[in-house]
Amino acid sequence: MRRAASIAILLLMLSAPAAAERARELGIPFAGTPGPLNAITDVPGVRVGHATLIHGQGGDAARTGVTAILPLGPDSDTPVPAAGAVLNGNGDMTGTQWLAESGFLEGPVVLTNTHSVGVARDAVVAWGQRHFPGTGAYSLPVVAETWDGYLNAINAFHVRPEHVWQALDSASGGPPAEGSVGGGTGMMAYRFKAGIGTSSRLVAGPGCPCTVGVLVQANYGQRDQLVIAGVAVGREIPDLMPTRGQEAQTDRRDGSIVAVIATDAPLLPHQLGRLARRVPIAIGRLGGIGANSSGDLFVAFSTRVPQAWAGGTQAWSTLPNDALDPLFSAVADATEEAIVNALVAADDMTGVDGNTVYALPERRLLAALRKWGRVR
Amino acid sequence: MRRAASIAILLLMLSAPAAAERARELGIPFAGTPGPLNAITDVPGVRVGHATLIHGQGGDAARTGVTAILPLGPDSDTPVPAAGAVLNGNGDMTGTQWLAESGFLEGPVVLTNTHSVGVARDAVVAWGQRHFPGTGAYSLPVVAETWDGYLNAINAFHVRPEHVWQALDSASGGPPAEGSVGGGTGMMAYRFKAGIGTSSRLVAGPGCPCTVGVLVQANYGQRDQLVIAGVAVGREIPDLMPTRGQEAQTDRRDGSIVAVIATDAPLLPHQLGRLARRVPIAIGRLGGIGANSSGDLFVAFSTRVPQAWAGGTQAWSTLPNDALDPLFSAVADATEEAIVNALVAADDMTGVDGNTVYALPERRLLAALRKWGRVR
Amino acid sequence: MRRAASIAILLLMLSAPAAAERARELGIPFAGTPGPLNAITDVPGVRVGHATLIHGQGGDAARTGVTAILPLGPDSDTPVPAAGAVLNGNGDMTGTQWLAESGFLEGPVVLTNTHSVGVARDAVVAWGQRHFPGTGAYSLPVVAETWDGYLNAINAFHVRPEHVWQALDSASGGPPAEGSVGGGTGMMAYRFKAGIGTSSRLVAGPGCPCTVGVLVQANYGQRDQLVIAGVAVGREIPDLMPTRGQEAQTDRRDGSIVAVIATDAPLLPHQLGRLARRVPIAIGRLGGIGANSSGDLFVAFSTRVPQAWAGGTQAWSTLPNDALDPLFSAVADATEEAIVNALVAADDMTGVDGNTVYALPERRLLAALRKWGRVR
Amino acid sequence: MRRAASIAILLLMLSAPAAAERARELGIPFAGTPGPLNAITDVPGVRVGHATLIHGQGGDAARTGVTAILPLGPDSDTPVPAAGAVLNGNGDMTGTQWLAESGFLEGPVVLTNTHSVGVARDAVVAWGQRHFPGTGAYSLPVVAETWDGYLNAINAFHVRPEHVWQALDSASGGPPAEGSVGGGTGMMAYRFKAGIGTSSRLVAGPGCPCTVGVLVQANYGQRDQLVIAGVAVGREIPDLMPTRGQEAQTDRRDGSIVAVIATDAPLLPHQLGRLARRVPIAIGRLGGIGANSSGDLFVAFSTRVPQAWAGGTQAWSTLPNDALDPLFSAVADATEEAIVNALVAADDMTGVDGNTVYALPERRLLAALRKWGRVR
Repeated sequence: MRRAASIAILLLMLSAPAAAERARELGIPFAGTPGPLNAITDVPGVRVGHATLIHGQGGDAARTGVTAILPLGPDSDTPVPAAGAVLNGNGDMTGTQWLAESGFLEGPVVLTNTHSVGVARDAVVAWGQRHFPGTGAYSLPVVAETWDGYLNAINAFHVRPEHVWQALDSASGGPPAEGSVGGGTGMMAYRFKAGIGTSSRLVAGPGCPCTVGVLVQANYGQRDQLVIAGVAVGREIPDLMPTRGQEAQTDRRDGSIVAVIATDAPLLPHQLGRLARRVPIAIGRLGGIGANSSGDLFVAFSTRVPQAWAGGTQAWSTLPNDALDPLFSAVADATEEAIVNALVAADDMTGVDGNTVYALPERRLLAALRKWGRVR
Repeated sequence: MRRAASIAILLLMLSAPAAAERARELGIPFAGTPGPLNAITDVPGVRVGHATLIHGQGGDAARTGVTAILPLGPDSDTPVPAAGAVLNGNGDMTGTQWLAESGFLEGPVVLTNTHSVGVARDAVVAWGQRHFPGTGAYSLPVVAETWDGYLNAINAFHVRPEHVWQALDSASGGPPAEGSVGGGTGMMAYRFKAGIGTSSRLVAGPGCPCTVGVLVQANYGQRDQLVIAGVAVGREIPDLMPTRGQEAQTDRRDGSIVAVIATDAPLLPHQLGRLARRVPIAIGRLGGIGANSSGDLFVAFSTRVPQAWAGGTQAWSTLPNDALDPLFSAVADATEEAIVNALVAADDMTGVDGNTVYALPERRLLAALRKWGRVR
Repeated sequence: MRRAASIAILLLMLSAPAAAERARELGIPFAGTPGPLNAITDVPGVRVGHATLIHGQGGDAARTGVTAILPLGPDSDTPVPAAGAVLNGNGDMTGTQWLAESGFLEGPVVLTNTHSVGVARDAVVAWGQRHFPGTGAYSLPVVAETWDGYLNAINAFHVRPEHVWQALDSASGGPPAEGSVGGGTGMMAYRFKAGIGTSSRLVAGPGCPCTVGVLVQANYGQRDQLVIAGVAVGREIPDLMPTRGQEAQTDRRDGSIVAVIATDAPLLPHQLGRLARRVPIAIGRLGGIGANSSGDLFVAFSTRVPQAWAGGTQAWSTLPNDALDPLFSAVADATEEAIVNALVAADDMTGVDGNTVYALPERRLLAALRKWGRVR
Repeated sequence: MRRAASIAILLLMLSAPAAAERARELGIPFAGTPGPLNAITDVPGVRVGHATLIHGQGGDAARTGVTAILPLGPDSDTPVPAAGAVLNGNGDMTGTQWLAESGFLEGPVVLTNTHSVGVARDAVVAWGQRHFPGTGAYSLPVVAETWDGYLNAINAFHVRPEHVWQALDSASGGPPAEGSVGGGTGMMAYRFKAGIGTSSRLVAGPGCPCTVGVLVQANYGQRDQLVIAGVAVGREIPDLMPTRGQEAQTDRRDGSIVAVIATDAPLLPHQLGRLARRVPIAIGRLGGIGANSSGDLFVAFSTRVPQAWAGGTQAWSTLPNDALDPLFSAVADATEEAIVNALVAADDMTGVDGNTVYALPERRLLAALRKWGRVR
């Protein structure tokens, strides 16, 4: 087990996107103004860590991992205002009852594969107890999943507690790795290889400048649905479909998308729910429909926490509802770009039983966009 | 129409509860400490107005009305933080989508009969436009209902806009009339005559002293379900059932209960939703079950509004979640007492087609409670 | 009042879209296969009626109306399985608590302006009592709204009960009028004149062939957001903005969109909720974001009602969840086309205080689509 | 690890309630007619299994376990119609997004302690993959928790996958053990020792006879809140409070209650949600309030599954909404009795760090009820 972990760390480094390109660098047009990193880590305090498990071949191949998003970094157990939303609930996100009831997220958001939600959840509890002993912190962790069983031997339960801790402990600011890393390692979207993607937007206005950052674990969508920048890219590239061993993969069931929205805009919990409910706008732009077999679960949090006052009350400074439209647009824009980033960053991958998922081919993507006048 | 209104006003005065007794004065035990009025109007700023329509006999008899609760009195169009809750949704409360989305109640809460929700709603719009011209205020009013068709010719649509305005314009602090007044005029609960009831509780703790006030329009429940102070009062008084003309009334369908919760505790909208979700605790104590034909709709608001700040943000000072238990108890306790107050305050009433609903007989109530040791 | 009604009827006829064009006829590409009428009335049994109020000039001008959708026509009071959904709740739809609790829609869905929800609601109650006396039918009607105050003297409360009855009584199968008719008379979308639009899709698969029909009252969106067929049409036509009298209209607040989804696919209530939650996919495709001031409220119903069985139970034959994806796509596709139809069908309109809203100019729309290769 | 499991099995047998009494046998009055076992297992097909972990002393003491409820026994992977509800969400129940979206429960409901939700969840996945290979069955298990950290070394993570499998594999019909067993081993309610309790009710009417069974893991409530049969029992027995080592335990935070409702009444998913929403009625009767620190999460399922038909549709035979009131009462009555059963069945327990929780003393309970005339 310890060996596996070491390999994982090794492979994490190998898989680090040395010259990973991003959608925007290809010239794909997106609305809005991104932050310096064009990533969720543009929101001050937010840190992201990945543990990537890529080892073995055949029936036992590991192509999976863990991604952790820490709202206020590793040294804070301060709950942050938060709320969730659902487009199609064929997935799991633990800890949402207390998130909805309290209006707070108490700890990190962790992403992994469907069959490892449990180990990740308990590992977050243990991590929280170790880092913040004597508190009830982190007893109801938020862990979400998408299904990577096409590439990963999901019933081998490769994810172990130490991988979760690795993701948590390695979390950092700076540009997060994208594509086939962390929880996104074995994921695909629109039947192209995908995984983790991130993006951000800057918002002006009262109570701001503010940043909205989004990180997705993208694993959903049929090929013919894919629309990028208004162009039906999926119809332009009908080949390069996943193979099951040597044969065409015929299962049409969709996977899922989990989106994590971070902002430093000062918002109340129910306003953060309003932000989370804009993720389907981005999915709609990209041709998705929230398919029956998709677990489209979203969580939004603000790093602007209320201040505790002497009298036992909490002091909040928040945006009025009529200032939220730019934030709604920012969520839609950043989610859209984060999903395309996940597609653009990922490379071809062969996994369990020789199954292969191909990357969205950059040249053909650009050719399609050029054909319809969206890039030069 | 003008005549009807005059009669209504006249009857309002005649029906004013000169020496109306209240449950607590009978010695019925309740938990917690009520405010000075033991009424929703103990919450500073809250005003209540009734328009009571009692006229005619036979098929056209009016036994209905309108009750208006103004969170900040008639001179303010400031929205107040608010949220709703539902036990069983066989009823209507307009304006709840915006209430849930925005977290604010913009205007009064108005209670009337099922078939007059519309006229009341538009009349609130008109009233708001008149009082606060040039604003969008009051475009999505909150109006709720229970069904008074046993006593009131509900399809005669007796309620007119001027009755709604009368309720709004006459709203005052001080002890609200209870029983067969306002929206509660033709209502019954547990097959005894009921209607409007109110109660309040004082709460200590961080950010307080605070007051929680509740006003109910009680129109639900089967006789054999009625439990007061732990005693199955309904089984002790199986007679005095409503009559349909001269015959026993056999329809077993339940009516509804609407509860309005006011507080000056500083709370966020989602916390007010938590308060509203405690009304079923009170219904459980009194033997109700939230029957299929019951519209059990609740709304809670706080009179502590956020302050607008220069930078365009709003400043809130709120209670932390772990300070809410006393408020949850207060909601349950005050709702329980408000319902019993509605029963105790109402007198026998004969209405449409000679249908009659009897009051809960005070002596027999006390005898039942005495038998089980709950009063001396 | 009677005179006003006559004028309304007269104008209804005058405003009947003699040669109204539809988006598809212009060559705009849409996904999926529409039914014969490409309208909600392709769903067998569904009928649509409009009452259109266009009279007067200046401060009292009426540019409003009522649209009624009857799931099973005028002769049935059978409840139909139904559920609702919300993108942004800055609007009102009455009757949703019972719809959610029971899983049934009991009566028509009626659309009108924001300040006429009440009169419409009570008028539906009265209509139901008259058509189905002795039943509780139609006591909690579903009435929704969007705000037409730019063109309509909304505080003149022009809609009267007889207009509601006219919409209900005139409901018919066949192609519904679109654009500035019925509840959509005074509405605009993306700052172009809009109103009522409809479309449908045919769906194959188990338990089918089925039809999904959508009718929208479209009144939302900023100009620069408008995307049609992947092309940022709104940015191509930045002029032709609404005028306030002679001046540019500067209010940037959004209106709303109400969508009514009908299907003959045999579905359970919670599955119909899943359909309703796909409307935001269409809004996303068209560039909308569900703005703060928008009331984006949706209701979906099935005309396949359960059969009452001897033993007191109801028999349902329903689609399994894993057969729903084609229906999800159908909802997104038909909603998208219905909204564009509302834009294409409407003509320029001058209303209250001389305010004017311009139609989406057909030639410039086509030029924009041609520029980006979407039409020839 | 294997040793621990063996000890657990041994202790499970030792802790089997040889002559455990039940509330009804003590003469405590409850409404309604129970089934033969007065247990959730009166619903045909439902099986319950416990794994009880009681070993060690001091800082590492295990006083915890796992309870599994299998809706259709161990040999079926047929999803059952289901829905959930929440009173206060300070807890976790995994798998609820898909349950809500699909309307089905796919697999068992498993109850354990707060820090073992994850291991239980993944263990159910593994168990499902082993029992039903090649299906996606059981990928999103429903696992809920309450917090047993007063008696159990919760951060020692005593629950292992084999304990979960033991609970699943040992599930049987017949009378389930109550009190300090399975997931309820270390739980307390109203500061008396509690844990697992169960009860059932028979319901006549159309589509029936039907059975409603409830199983609770009860771990909530303050002493002074406890009301049984209308009598404030908690105030009568203010002593016997939990001790922290040798000292009085002063933490006033509440635990939680999870309720599982089974029925063979033929119901649609949204109707099962209506049943689940009646649990607060029972909590209200017993003096609970749904405290801030309580996770009051409920799930209801029906063993009457839809039949698959040739054409790809599902056939349901369901009760109409207006037949549900007896079921609502049954849920409230059975939940109430199940909670009291949990209190009555449990014995004193000393656990981690010598902390002790005392059982509700039978004689003093009866004395209190006798004082107020509720038992002879």
